[in-house]
Formats: sequence, C-alpha cells, structure tokens
Amino acid sequence: MATAPIRILGLDPGLRRTGWGLIEAIGSRLGFIACGAVLPPEDAPLATRLALLHEGLAQVISRYAPDEAAVEETFVNVNPASTLKLGQARGVVMLTPALAGIPVAEYAALLVKKTVVGSGRAEKAQIRMMIKVLLPTSKVESDDAADALAVAVTHAQHRGPAALRAAALARSGTVATGRA
Amino acid sequence: MATAPIRILGLDPGLRRTGWGLIEAIGSRLGFIACGAVLPPEDAPLATRLALLHEGLAQVISRYAPDEAAVEETFVNVNPASTLKLGQARGVVMLTPALAGIPVAEYAALLVKKTVVGSGRAEKAQIRMMIKVLLPTSKVESDDAADALAVAVTHAQHRGPAALRAAALARSGTVATGRA
Repeated sequence: MATAPIRILGLDPGLRRTGWGLIEAIGSRLGFIACGAVLPPEDAPLATRLALLHEGLAQVISRYAPDEAAVEETFVNVNPASTLKLGQARGVVMLTPALAGIPVAEYAALLVKKTVVGSGRAEKAQIRMMIKVLLPTSKVESDDAADALAVAVTHAQHRGPAALRAAALARSGTVATGRA
Repeated sequence: MATAPIRILGLDPGLRRTGWGLIEAIGSRLGFIACGAVLPPEDAPLATRLALLHEGLAQVISRYAPDEAAVEETFVNVNPASTLKLGQARGVVMLTPALAGIPVAEYAALLVKKTVVGSGRAEKAQIRMMIKVLLPTSKVESDDAADALAVAVTHAQHRGPAALRAAALARSGTVATGRA
C-alpha cells in the first residue's frame, strides 16, 4: 500500500528573522522542497513588523500549501525584553498556519537537536551539516532556514500520538531520540 | 470648528484573558462605547487558542469599527515561561488591528497609570474606580476590561507627536502625567 505524501512546514520564529523550511515526507523518506527566511524591516513600528511577518508566512503557505506545520519551542532565556519580543513573533508564527486551517505542532529545541543530530547539545553548524545529509538537495543559506528544516524533519519522525508522548518525555529530560 | 469623533480600541493582552475597551473621543470629551474580554479555552492547543483570540478581537473590530488601537506595554517579569506566553498573546493582539488597517500605538503601563490615576504606583482597584469617574456610563465587569479602557483613555490624551515624546519620557521615568 502506498503512503500518501505529507508536506510539512517547519518554522523557527524570531522578530528580526523567522526561518521557514518545507519538506515532503513519504513514509520515512524525506524530500526537500524549499526554505528561506522572512525579515520584517527592523525600523517599522512593532504592529507593522508583525503584520509583515504574518504576510510573508501567509505567502509561503499559499504558495506551497503545506498539510501540517511545526514550530520550535525556542526558549532563549536572555532577558525578559528579548523573551517578550520572541513571544510576540512566535504568537504570529503559530497563528498564521492556524488561520489557514493547518494543524500546528510544537517541539522542544532539545528534541529537535536529538532527532537531527543525535545530541541535545548540538551546535548550529552541526544542525546545518546534518540537514545537508538528511536532505541532500537542500540549499540552505541561513541558520534560521536550517533550524526550520530541522523542526520539519522532527515533525516527520514524531507526528501522531507516539510523537506527543516522545515530545513530552524529551521536555522532562528523560528520553533520547525515539522514532515514532 | 467641530472636532471629528475618534473611536479608540484599548487592549490589555493576555493568553487566558485579553481585555478590550472602546471609547469615543471628541476633542477632550470622552464617551464609553463598550468593553469586554476574550477568553480562549485554556485546554485547547496553543495555536488554536491564539486563533480564537484573533477571531474574538476581529469580531470586536468588525462590530465597532475603531479608528485607532492602543496596547499596554505590559511587562510582568514573573518568569520566562509566563513572559513568553504573554508575548505570544501580545503578538496576536497587536497583529489583529494591524491586519484590519488600524494604527496600533503602545503605551508603557507606568504612563497608563499616571494618566488615569495620577500615580505610576496605582492599584487595579484605583484604575477601575477612576474609569468609572472618567467614563460614568461604563459598565466594567473585569480588571482586564478596566485596564483596556485605561489604555484607550491614555491614547486619547497622548495621541500625536507630543504623545510619543511623553511616552518615551515616562518610560525613562523622568516625567509625570503630561497632556498632549
């Protein structure tokens, strides 16, 4: 029996740069479709920046028609002002696919790193390298896009009920990779 | 010469409860129009909660057609997880009027308190009491709605270039109320 292909949109939220990456999963086979980043102008008022972030992602969604979306649970605890900014971008990044009727999953950064590199302490360069191995035809021009593809790959491997369990366990720090 | 009335939508963002309040300003005269709160179900996935928050506010905007919106720069530094959650709600709350083509201003909580109560250390109960004084016909059933009306009143008094200066100074902690 053939498995229907699933288009997955991975998203790495940020107010200055939001990475996006699209893959196609046919069973356990993964294929690269496209990736990039949305960069709202930094000198615009906050509401305008959020509107441009939304419009950029809405264009990606309308162009590539993903079936499912996945967002990294980024959690940079630098300072409250940065966390609030990240949260604002993340709210828009989660809302945009939801408004298009696309289910949005969340994955802890730890699980994304473990899934793609095999270690929760993976560096950005290692993620980028492994994305090239997992998706040989990918052309990744930024860390954000690589991170977004990594979230999409994580979703491909962990979607469904088993995935939710694995994500919850990974968040509590008690489990390694684990494939659904 | 008559001053054209301006409809102002004040917003007090929160993931569990987002307060909204509408007033009409004719010159320095203020009138109450409506207020309430959007409460997305707490047990839904995050993306769904954000979508329901967006839809609730979009309904308010479509029903009352405000000319301008104002959002409080809430800054509860409890812990990073709460700050991230607040940020996510705040991103959606700022995006929704922006998508409807309504300009969105931001006001520091300190300036809102100073404008409405006269002191940056005002308690919630004092804000609610002063809203009743400033908008005698208002029927306020929650602190969120009172806070939202307080932001709308602040915007009525500080809109325009003088307002931006006052907001910036209040943020740096060097100025009291100050009317535009």
